[in-house]
Amino acid sequence: MTQNLDHKFLGIALAEAEMGLADGGLPIGSVLARNGELVASGHNQRVQQGDPIAHGEMDCLRKAGRQRSYRDTVLYTTLSPCMMCSGTIVQFGIPRVVIGEAETFAGNIDFLRQNGVEVLLMDDEGCKDVMRRFLSSPENRQIWLEDIAED
Amino acid sequence: MTQNLDHKFLGIALAEAEMGLADGGLPIGSVLARNGELVASGHNQRVQQGDPIAHGEMDCLRKAGRQRSYRDTVLYTTLSPCMMCSGTIVQFGIPRVVIGEAETFAGNIDFLRQNGVEVLLMDDEGCKDVMRRFLSSPENRQIWLEDIAED
Repeated sequence: MTQNLDHKFLGIALAEAEMGLADGGLPIGSVLARNGELVASGHNQRVQQGDPIAHGEMDCLRKAGRQRSYRDTVLYTTLSPCMMCSGTIVQFGIPRVVIGEAETFAGNIDFLRQNGVEVLLMDDEGCKDVMRRFLSSPENRQIWLEDIAED
Repeated sequence: MTQNLDHKFLGIALAEAEMGLADGGLPIGSVLARNGELVASGHNQRVQQGDPIAHGEMDCLRKAGRQRSYRDTVLYTTLSPCMMCSGTIVQFGIPRVVIGEAETFAGNIDFLRQNGVEVLLMDDEGCKDVMRRFLSSPENRQIWLEDIAED
């Protein structure tokens, strides 16, 4: 049951990533769920809104709005979370994170686990493919380096 | 000179915090500076915008917009950064952080330093006082616990 839900919500996160790609943005999507129900979904808005903090996970958490607690939530993301998003997961007390892929970007899975977060890495081909399509353009490659602040 | 600039920019961050308080929000402000010039300033928007990720530092970084690099910037904040904001500082490669106070909230100064960030703690009375005034109401105390996700 959990496995079915994980596929379902990661699928919604991937649909968000595809929406981002269609708008010329970084194709990274995210979902926040509670008790098998969708709370919110979002995707990276760096290009679309000129917002450097709007990674997929952050856009999703923003759209979820104020929550009294995150203790019963699961966060889904198509790409392994950067240090901003990992710090947010730990600060907010999100106990479980499902990651589409960690090949394009390794992220901070060890940091999450060391801080008590349960991490499931799906190694999902769809999540890899959407990033591959985005990164096939040199211009997009620059946007991606900007997004992870690598210079 | 650096010391004068630090006082000046922390003063602007504190003015942002006071603006937040006047609007009924959490009085935590922030400034991003580069080469002695203000890039952007912001303050916590949890109450005003219903946005859980808009801590003072994050609101400031959002308002600064897309930056090619943060390597020559300094971030000022009236209150010691939480794990979300600390993770963001590390991910963005901000090399120096000036903190107003770490008494109301200890934050993650060790984490920042371990990740190569230079941290200056000012122990500023004005920064403490604005939080004290906010937290004097029990209702605001609840908003504060929500902001740091403590339940």
